Amino acid sequence: MRAARYYDRNDIRIEDIAEPELKPGTVAIEVAWCGICGTDLHEYLEGPIFIPPAGHPHPISGEAAPVVIGHEFSGTIIGLADDVNDLQVGENVVVEPYIIGDDVDTGPGSDYQLSKDMNFIGLGGRGGGLAERIVVERRWVHPIGDIPLDQAALIEPLSVGHHAFVRSGATAGQTAIVGGAGPIGLLTAAVLKAEGLTVYISERSQARKTMATETGVADEVFDPRDGDVAEMVREWTGGRGADVGFECSSVPVVLDTLIDAVRPGGVVVNVSIWGHNPPVDMPQLVLKEIDLRGTIGYANDHPDTIALVQSGRLDLAPFITGRIALDELVSKGYDQLINNNEEHVKIIVNPHA
Amino acid sequence: MRAARYYDRNDIRIEDIAEPELKPGTVAIEVAWCGICGTDLHEYLEGPIFIPPAGHPHPISGEAAPVVIGHEFSGTIIGLADDVNDLQVGENVVVEPYIIGDDVDTGPGSDYQLSKDMNFIGLGGRGGGLAERIVVERRWVHPIGDIPLDQAALIEPLSVGHHAFVRSGATAGQTAIVGGAGPIGLLTAAVLKAEGLTVYISERSQARKTMATETGVADEVFDPRDGDVAEMVREWTGGRGADVGFECSSVPVVLDTLIDAVRPGGVVVNVSIWGHNPPVDMPQLVLKEIDLRGTIGYANDHPDTIALVQSGRLDLAPFITGRIALDELVSKGYDQLINNNEEHVKIIVNPHA
Repeated sequence: MRAARYYDRNDIRIEDIAEPELKPGTVAIEVAWCGICGTDLHEYLEGPIFIPPAGHPHPISGEAAPVVIGHEFSGTIIGLADDVNDLQVGENVVVEPYIIGDDVDTGPGSDYQLSKDMNFIGLGGRGGGLAERIVVERRWVHPIGDIPLDQAALIEPLSVGHHAFVRSGATAGQTAIVGGAGPIGLLTAAVLKAEGLTVYISERSQARKTMATETGVADEVFDPRDGDVAEMVREWTGGRGADVGFECSSVPVVLDTLIDAVRPGGVVVNVSIWGHNPPVDMPQLVLKEIDLRGTIGYANDHPDTIALVQSGRLDLAPFITGRIALDELVSKGYDQLINNNEEHVKIIVNPHA
Repeated sequence: MRAARYYDRNDIRIEDIAEPELKPGTVAIEVAWCGICGTDLHEYLEGPIFIPPAGHPHPISGEAAPVVIGHEFSGTIIGLADDVNDLQVGENVVVEPYIIGDDVDTGPGSDYQLSKDMNFIGLGGRGGGLAERIVVERRWVHPIGDIPLDQAALIEPLSVGHHAFVRSGATAGQTAIVGGAGPIGLLTAAVLKAEGLTVYISERSQARKTMATETGVADEVFDPRDGDVAEMVREWTGGRGADVGFECSSVPVVLDTLIDAVRPGGVVVNVSIWGHNPPVDMPQLVLKEIDLRGTIGYANDHPDTIALVQSGRLDLAPFITGRIALDELVSKGYDQLINNNEEHVKIIVNPHA
């Protein structure tokens, strides 16, 4: 079958590889669509980061580069191991793309995203969504009912936003300020809006501001070039400040703005990935008793995230800004996202085209 | 009566001032002992910070420098307003030294320490503990039963440690790492130990390491010059890491060490005061889903803190390292703490001597 494999930085190859094999406890899936993630771009430009370099196999998967890439994907079940009885061939599904130790509890309430050597399918081995087919452990397969397969490719990044929402402890009726309207900022805002919060977004890019407004995920978009965003948030909340903030930009000043913009006793969840140790406004964090919380991936978030989309409260269609074939992965995918980043939210790839 | 008043940086005067007047809803207290706090030293060396400068009255107290100083004090009730019926003349008490708006709810569960323009008795006006007598609102007076009055002067900083413990969400049987064994680090450790946690302390100063060991508040003291403290914590916790960390040093590397030393999903409470924005290990905070929580002052912590001392699980006596008279405040108090900081935990002042 055809697949995109990561060999090294700037070296991704579309090639023919062996079909994956169905083993006990697994499910075979025909991939429909696979999204391109910011993490994929980082691996391409600066990696390998999550990807185990050639000669250094991952301790759980036992694999190293070249590995199949792509971890945001949807598809249809085409085969089930004999011992998998609670799914049907023909069912549409998404995959929670974790590589996690066999002995790690993944039941309700467990923090398996924090387990030792955690990695992701489509980065650390075990196939990926940028291939025609994949075989994965039953526990990572989530049925999606009648959610269209193209939109379902966005369930994975949406689950990141859902997990950030859960980490915040926010509830319906509260007010959130999201720093940055890139893909994760927009999808986090979409979850917050669907969960009944009032959502403000801070963003400088005109294209992203337009997207935040047109998708309806933001009640109001503030541009830091128009003034002090924290002050604007206070004005819009009767002087009180937001209840929760979500850092989705990896820009130090945005993190400090969120610490300023939330109310005393408020929560700031850091959703972005940092490549360095930024200065943080600890004086304000202390005097306002802010909780600054890290969030990574998801843990038992997929069912609730899928239900949110099925309920109709959250429409993923507007976030798909490009559809390409596997051969176009670099030319019309990565290069487009690197050079015209602000025009896009999610480009999805059809591995059969 | 005699009192120590702060006029300006490096200008503290012991002088005769008018007796405070009993008004409706207030309690008159003969001060027994008053501790010197790090905040007092900052005001003396770098202030005014909390203290409203001359000509700039505090919005709640209406006062400005010169103000009576001292906010860590104990004493005996010598007078009660007619409408105060639940206390007795002759009762020993401590004062929760807040200046907070009349309209702010100070009932159970309220975060009055975060209310607008919050300040402290002994900094922002309304008298102070470095005077022979003081009159305070009933709501800030806490009976101490048979706790000796000298030890009771340490209830206020101990309540800071108790509030940090409450903010951490830690429970008996868990493991804590405290960064820094200055007065607040030691008293926070004392609360943690009394609450049933295993307590590790990271500290470089020999005098402070000795104090941490001799007072019994630390199960083990780690010196960062002996190696990686986070690694030592993991060794002592079977590879797991501590459940909670408490930053009590205002040193950036200590904050990062705590983020490293707590387990995935752990909590770091910042108890120290920062004069700048330090770099923070956000990459680890994100990947380990750490909660970094600010804490300031106390809120409904005094009753539990007093009960902890009354229970005998926490002995404050060893933390008193000096007793001086009011006239010696600068010469044997401030100057001693500034120049021989590491030899002292708490110097207490007798305003009648």
